[in-house]
Parts: sequence; structure tokens; C-alpha cells
Amino acid sequence: MEQIYDLIIIGSGPAGLGAAIYAKRADLKTLVLEKEAVSGGQVLTTYEVDNYAGLPGIGGFDLGMKFREHADRLGTEFAEETVLRVEEAETGEEILMAAEAGPALKQVVCQNHTYLTKTVIIASGAHHRKLGIPGEEEFLGMGVSYCATCDGAFFKKKTVAVVGGGDVAIEDAIFLARFCKKVYLIHRRDELRGAKSLQKRLMECENAEIIWDTVVENVKGSTRVESIQLKNKKTGEGRELFVDGVFIAVGITPNTAVFDGLAAMDAGGYIVAGEDGRTSEPGIFAAGDVRTKALRQIVTAVSDGANCISSVERYLNGQG
Amino acid sequence: MEQIYDLIIIGSGPAGLGAAIYAKRADLKTLVLEKEAVSGGQVLTTYEVDNYAGLPGIGGFDLGMKFREHADRLGTEFAEETVLRVEEAETGEEILMAAEAGPALKQVVCQNHTYLTKTVIIASGAHHRKLGIPGEEEFLGMGVSYCATCDGAFFKKKTVAVVGGGDVAIEDAIFLARFCKKVYLIHRRDELRGAKSLQKRLMECENAEIIWDTVVENVKGSTRVESIQLKNKKTGEGRELFVDGVFIAVGITPNTAVFDGLAAMDAGGYIVAGEDGRTSEPGIFAAGDVRTKALRQIVTAVSDGANCISSVERYLNGQG
Repeated sequence: MEQIYDLIIIGSGPAGLGAAIYAKRADLKTLVLEKEAVSGGQVLTTYEVDNYAGLPGIGGFDLGMKFREHADRLGTEFAEETVLRVEEAETGEEILMAAEAGPALKQVVCQNHTYLTKTVIIASGAHHRKLGIPGEEEFLGMGVSYCATCDGAFFKKKTVAVVGGGDVAIEDAIFLARFCKKVYLIHRRDELRGAKSLQKRLMECENAEIIWDTVVENVKGSTRVESIQLKNKKTGEGRELFVDGVFIAVGITPNTAVFDGLAAMDAGGYIVAGEDGRTSEPGIFAAGDVRTKALRQIVTAVSDGANCISSVERYLNGQG
Repeated sequence: MEQIYDLIIIGSGPAGLGAAIYAKRADLKTLVLEKEAVSGGQVLTTYEVDNYAGLPGIGGFDLGMKFREHADRLGTEFAEETVLRVEEAETGEEILMAAEAGPALKQVVCQNHTYLTKTVIIASGAHHRKLGIPGEEEFLGMGVSYCATCDGAFFKKKTVAVVGGGDVAIEDAIFLARFCKKVYLIHRRDELRGAKSLQKRLMECENAEIIWDTVVENVKGSTRVESIQLKNKKTGEGRELFVDGVFIAVGITPNTAVFDGLAAMDAGGYIVAGEDGRTSEPGIFAAGDVRTKALRQIVTAVSDGANCISSVERYLNGQG
């Protein structure tokens, strides 16, 4: 008869693999589903990671591999699958008996197969919105970054541009102004959307300058970013700005489209869940970038994975 | 004149060092205070750590060293100091001017020196309550453990005892029963304090057995734990129980005595703080085992450190 898992983890970035490590050590019958051929998620495309404690200066790809090897070493079962939806299991008699009067079973419907499980951790991550301009992808990790907290420290005493106008863009600019020689904030409108207190703080940074009504048309350089081509939307005027780095902060989109209706989401499409990963739907948990949280980092994602296993165990123990 | 730090971190276990790494990368003027000669906290006395993603099977002492080296590599300033108290800074004119109309300054009074700072992260950790019996300390990491989540997986198919009667002891026993050959729960009373749902679940574990009214008098073995000496408190009868491991779950005490009155604490003495580390006192943050949280693990402590720096930055940016 059909196999029943204690836990299915959707996604194998830091959150999913962090959960897998704790799940295996708790001896939960666990399956990890990953749509890509390689585990690691966004970490894979990170040039260097210098803030995951214990592994200073490691390459992003290497860190992803280390996480995966750790999970493999503990005997984690993986399947390369694209998840189509998660729903209540069809309640055949066989399934009812198998559940042994435990929690209601769920089924994870994928392209190749449908899997039965008692619990699900959604760790499908998020992706940064792109500008979609020439050079953006080419120079990713070579001057183009989507995360000032992650990569800012590599630009000490250098000149950088931040693109965007919301809270995150302003926070990034203030953050970078502490140690960069010069920070340009490039915004396509003539006012910022971000909080007034942040705007005030940014204005106080002597080495920060806002370039209004302007879009970036392309990113240029040889091996690394050397300049960006700007265009003023009001005057139509173009100019080249010489920078060592470009931080793009125009938003994040969680990978939650297929989970619509499964558990409560916020306006941005993030799954509403606290530190314990519990969602509005019993037995469904969320870990990492996909959930509502303040700081999306590798270590906070791995930590979410651990916390979720604790919650999964409580759920399986009948503690809600 | 007196130096003013952006941030003082009290403690250099995983939480404190996790915070230090993010603080240095954010270029905050930071000082870490540690009362011991060596950083790492409770990790140092852990025999093997197999659940910190990316570093499978590392020795606890080595992991502590790796965290410290990471912080050192980023140029973190440390001082060996025992903190006596944290309080509002005495408001000399010099200090007022130095604060530049920023947030109110605090002073961290230590045995050797008093330090001025804008913010404080308390990462002073916690310690497991001991039974105080012969062999307990001797066999720590060699069969004696205070954390089933951390060390349980090393006892697959073995016989273990859990000592205690609260929620954590029962959870540990259920957890261990999934993969150990036999689990004894040893409790000094004739009923458990833990939640009824957990007790029910424990009773269902066929390989778990509760030994009532009994205390452990000593832990015996040659290089590793081999048995424990029990005594029935009602009959006075003694007996030797052969086990491979002893999990002691008689409570945790946070190291918060010197912070009494500084920020709100719960009944157990933990500093009340959520995932963002913010306490009831503006500018005072708490990270790691010392704060109210569900899962006290190395990775959740490191994650707390990162989250606290995000909160410190918001505070310094005037965002509360």
C-alpha cells in the first residue's frame, strides 16, 4: 500500500535542509521535494557568504552543497518534483486505517507522483524582483546584489548605487553609507515611499545622494560592475554613473502561488507564520523566506527549519 | 574622552558571536564582554554537534572556536569582563554632547571597567540544572546529556534513562522512544507534572517505562556511562539499572540574575523577548537561550544574534 510520511518538506534551500537535518535526527519519516536538480535555493547564486557563523567567506554554491551533504549524511530521502498543490488526502478506507486515528492526512500532488503525509513544511523560498535590464544577470555576484545585509561589507570604502524607493531601499542606503565612500539612491519617482523617519535619517548621511525620477537602463563593466547607465524619466536625459556595486531593492516575491488558499497569506503573498512556523492550517508549517518575518538570511532560514521540526513534533504528539 | 559604543554584547556563546558577526558586517562600533577566558558558552562542553547545518559531526569545542575565529576575522573587539549591572549612563555634559541627541546612553558596569553604549544585547545564556550526583560531571558528553534534541540521535537502538517529570522530560522520553531500544523515565514523585496529552502519548510508547518515586544516586561506568544507581524514595530500596545514556531534564536556569529589574522577565527568569530580540526596555535586546523562546539550539541562538542586529539598526535609525 501507499507509503505515508510523517513529514514532507517542500524546497531544499537553507530552510528545507535545516528542517531535514532536525527531522532525520528526530527519526521522522521524511521526504524532501525539490524542483531543481541541485539543492541550495538562492544560496547557490550567491558569490560569497561571510555571515553564516563558523564558515567565514565560503562560496554560496559550496555552502549549498555542504547543507545538502549534511542532510544526505543523515540519510534524508529526496525527490526531484515540482509541487502542483497540497490538499486533504482522499479518504479511502486504507488511508483512514493507516492514519491510525492520528492527524488527518494530506496529499502533496506533484508532476510525477502524489505523496501522502501527516505534515508539510513549506520552504519554497522567495525570489528578488529583477529590473530586467542588460548586465543585471551577467554581473550577479560581481557587483550586482539583491541584499545589502548579505553583501554590503564587500564594498567598504567603495561607491555603490541602491535602486528602489521603499523601506528596504532606504535602509540599504543608510546601512551602506556607514562604510561606503559614496552611496547613490536611484528612484524612478520624485518622492520615496519609505518611512519618513528613515528618509530623515538618510538625508543626514553626508555621503548619500538621491537621484530622483531616474531609471537604470543597463549595468556595464568588464569582469565586475564599473558603471550604470541612467535615464531621467522627466527630461529624457541620459548619463553614465561610475559605481563599484549596484544593490537592487525593488521587492521580493515569495514562491507561494501554488499554495494559494492552503493557509493564510499576507498582502505580499508571504505565508503568515511566526517563529514556530505554525500557519493557519493545522499540520502545515512554513520556514524561511516564504514566511512573514523581519530578517531573511541564511541562518534565520536554517533556524526556522529547526523550529518547524519542534512544532511538527508537538503536532504529532497531539499538542496542537 | 570616554569611548561610546554603538553596541555592547554581553556573552560570547553562539548568540553573542552570531550578533557580533552581523554587527561587524554592519560596521557598528561593537564590544563583546565575556566572563570566561574562552568563547563558546555551553557549546564548549558539548562532545559532538551534529545538527548545525554545514558542519556535521563537529566537536563542540571546535565549533565554539570556529564561531570565535569568524568574529575575530571580522575584527571584533572582546574584553574579559564580568558584568555587574546595566543602567542609564550618568549624564555628564560630555556624555550628553557625545550622544549627539541620539538615543539615551547606557553604561555597562563590570568588575574592571565601566563601558558606555547606545545599545546592549544580552546573550548571557542559560545553564541546565544539575542533579549534583557522583559521575554526572565525569560522564558529561560520554553518556550524560542535558539535551535529547541535541544528543538523542547518538543513542539509536540503545537503552537510555530520562530523569525528570515535567513537559521537557516527557517530550524527551517520547522523542527517544522513537529510535532507542528502551527508554526509562525516572521520576522522584508518583505522578508527572507534564501535560496530560504528553503523558497519554508516552503511555502509548511500548518501549518506554516509567519508574516512579525514584531518584538517581550516581552514574557509573568506565569510559562511558554503563549504569545508574537508583533508590526508591518510598521503600528505600536500591537497584542498579544498566543504560547507555542518561538524559537529565530537571530544568534550565537563565543567567539573568544581574539583569533583574532591567527588562521584563517571565516567572522562570527568562528575559521576555520575541524573535526580534526587543525587550520591554528600549535599546536593550536579548538573544539566545536567555530569552523566552520555544527551542534552545545552537542555530536558533546564532539566528537570534542576527535578528538582534537588525533590531539594533532599526533602533539606531529611530524606528523604535
